[in-house]
Amino acid sequence: MGENTMEFSEYFPVWDKLTPGQQEMISGSLVGRTVKKGAVLYNGGTDCTGLLLVKSGQLRAFILSEEGREITVYRLFDRDICLFSASCVMRSIQFEVTISAEKDTTLWVIPADVYKWLMEQSAAVANYTNEIMASRFSEVMWLLEQVMWKSMDKRVAAFLLEEAAIESTNRLNITHENIANHLGTHREVVTRMLRYFQREDMVKLSRGTVEITDRVKLEALGGDY
Amino acid sequence: MGENTMEFSEYFPVWDKLTPGQQEMISGSLVGRTVKKGAVLYNGGTDCTGLLLVKSGQLRAFILSEEGREITVYRLFDRDICLFSASCVMRSIQFEVTISAEKDTTLWVIPADVYKWLMEQSAAVANYTNEIMASRFSEVMWLLEQVMWKSMDKRVAAFLLEEAAIESTNRLNITHENIANHLGTHREVVTRMLRYFQREDMVKLSRGTVEITDRVKLEALGGDY
Repeated sequence: MGENTMEFSEYFPVWDKLTPGQQEMISGSLVGRTVKKGAVLYNGGTDCTGLLLVKSGQLRAFILSEEGREITVYRLFDRDICLFSASCVMRSIQFEVTISAEKDTTLWVIPADVYKWLMEQSAAVANYTNEIMASRFSEVMWLLEQVMWKSMDKRVAAFLLEEAAIESTNRLNITHENIANHLGTHREVVTRMLRYFQREDMVKLSRGTVEITDRVKLEALGGDY
Repeated sequence: MGENTMEFSEYFPVWDKLTPGQQEMISGSLVGRTVKKGAVLYNGGTDCTGLLLVKSGQLRAFILSEEGREITVYRLFDRDICLFSASCVMRSIQFEVTISAEKDTTLWVIPADVYKWLMEQSAAVANYTNEIMASRFSEVMWLLEQVMWKSMDKRVAAFLLEEAAIESTNRLNITHENIANHLGTHREVVTRMLRYFQREDMVKLSRGTVEITDRVKLEALGGDY
């Protein structure tokens, strides 16, 4: 087993449930990639890039309105797998997401046809795929609930707390435009919220950064994130 | 093969891909049910009713806000299967829907543990489950896009057209409250929209009914539904 395959096998939870032939098929077709922050890995539509398995870094899946507004649907971190970049694997996937790198990212691409073949062969792979889809489904349902029932001030507060947890810092390098694109709103709305947070001493704003200065107060507003 | 099983086998697309033992397992555990319009079949949380396969009728899956507002997530018609009433089958299903009958409905319940066992045994069943989940996922993504980018007048128009298609009539027996509960808004908002539609000669309102009088104009507003 080559070094690349050996490493992959540690990241792919059902590796041990594959037959030697299936393992060979996957390791023979696996492609390693490194992408820079900002790169677009998948762009919806007829594109069928394959499954993306993140080794290290951070990806973002988002949808676009006709007017070019964005909203983040979910994010992918180390060991996460992205199915929807291989939407041709399942005919019932009838929507389009865009996947871009939020940080420099190292990942594996499993070709869509190989994965489709594997799913048909192996109940273990098919059930693993089910679990991945169910967990993305849960994230989208969470998002739907946020969008439906939560006011924008609470959503901005929750987003800042989430970012702080991901980056392990209270000093976030993020623009108001970025925040708006995550939450599916306009920059002006975010700016208004952040200024209100600043007046309430929850954050401190400066060019390109938002610093959380009163986490307890922000948590009281944002609730679970 | 009993009559019940024979009928079920016509409704369950992967029946022919099951082994005789698996077929026996499923037909031995299958429960037929008939529920009245309005009945709640599944109520989220720790409930694990089993998979619901609709023989005839109409079900509705919706989520609830803390304040008791509702929004329809998807609907189930003849031959549709509901996975999320068996959320214990997959540990990654981390959200709660409520399922109720919109019409008198005849259905089969497949116990959750039997289905879980089948999915583990049979790649065909696991992949079928994947397709079901992907198609619900697509419906939720569509809903998210509607909620994010479409104004309420367009959503009300699209909903009326969808109802007319389901019921094969332009004269809908539906209250403003019902419409609000489908769309996740307040009754007052729906009433305001409908009165505007009436002034524009698109609908005619009377107690408990909404009649579509200008479908072309309503379609121009509602777009694809």
